Amino acid sequence: MLLEKLNWRYATKKMDPKRSVSEDKVERIVEAARLAPTSSGLQPFEVIVVTNPEIREKIRAVAWNQAQITDGSHLLVFAAWDNYTSERINGMFDLVNQERGFTNEGWENYRKMILDTYVPRDPQINFEHAARQAYIGFGMSVAAAAFEGVDATPMEGFEPEKVDEILGLRARGLRSVTLLPLGYRDGENDWLVNLKKVRRSKDQFVSEVR
Amino acid sequence: MLLEKLNWRYATKKMDPKRSVSEDKVERIVEAARLAPTSSGLQPFEVIVVTNPEIREKIRAVAWNQAQITDGSHLLVFAAWDNYTSERINGMFDLVNQERGFTNEGWENYRKMILDTYVPRDPQINFEHAARQAYIGFGMSVAAAAFEGVDATPMEGFEPEKVDEILGLRARGLRSVTLLPLGYRDGENDWLVNLKKVRRSKDQFVSEVR
Repeated sequence: MLLEKLNWRYATKKMDPKRSVSEDKVERIVEAARLAPTSSGLQPFEVIVVTNPEIREKIRAVAWNQAQITDGSHLLVFAAWDNYTSERINGMFDLVNQERGFTNEGWENYRKMILDTYVPRDPQINFEHAARQAYIGFGMSVAAAAFEGVDATPMEGFEPEKVDEILGLRARGLRSVTLLPLGYRDGENDWLVNLKKVRRSKDQFVSEVR
Repeated sequence: MLLEKLNWRYATKKMDPKRSVSEDKVERIVEAARLAPTSSGLQPFEVIVVTNPEIREKIRAVAWNQAQITDGSHLLVFAAWDNYTSERINGMFDLVNQERGFTNEGWENYRKMILDTYVPRDPQINFEHAARQAYIGFGMSVAAAAFEGVDATPMEGFEPEKVDEILGLRARGLRSVTLLPLGYRDGENDWLVNLKKVRRSKDQFVSEVR
């Protein structure tokens, strides 16, 4: 069932600007990212849903002019934390205690270890770590879109600093890592829609240690 | 449906060593990673399926002694390319031409641009880029395991250099980035199984630009 959906999806090249994705579908696509597992459960990223046409025009201009950004109805921007701070880490550990209604020594020792390891570390290394977690959520949203019958185009081809500027992300301690325009394919005008999905063969991708 | 599965799954802490995941399920869990979208379709990672008990014991020893690695029946190791080389990039572009049965000027210009950008770049930057792609596949396998009713524990807590050594990955131009033990939960002995899944609230995770 999941494999069927993953085979159905493709990186849509031409979206139909006349069709909009419904809000409940968008919500579920974002929810999949929110439920994604992340390292120590820190969820070091956010999703920004951009519908504003002028803002999407500006983003398109710093993203190789890819038309899906404005032809789709929604643009998801995945933005990772620029750094791990004690405030952010404690926020997540406190939330877990609050939601579960108890504290636990092992968990508190783990918190201390994470604080001691992450906070003094080079911010760029922390950002790279956070970005990887964002990619798990990004993948979940790609899968969720396919489940909703919504077309999506996973994109890395853009100038992150400029997108950060357009959306004011750095002031929020965020850095954009990927874009995901959502919409519906314009099958008649999409050169990719009928081309074969190409992946390395299984024997070039998987190996076994028995 | 996907959200239901994502709510069902959790980072299993105690697996039942007496139960094995069937080979067809493992195959579909790996296949989800193979179908994952990656930047320029390069698929810069591989999956190693480890069942050998001695090898898994060795990996467990360099992974904070996490018991799921040996209590589960299969261990998936996600390993990213250590670098982008012209051989690897051309291999993927050639495969696309071969599978689709034609060449195209736009595609060939794109190949040249990728070669010109990636090959001279710092190998560490290339590895970080490849690792991010591996995380998309990793997320797909996590979702696929949930679809199969298979428990899995997404893991970053291990010494990658030592896992690379145990599996001989560097000689193959690979570096381990994540582990995913597969098995079945031992519900009676898993402290996490009945605890609430905690995520930041939607308003702390999503924002809109209308």
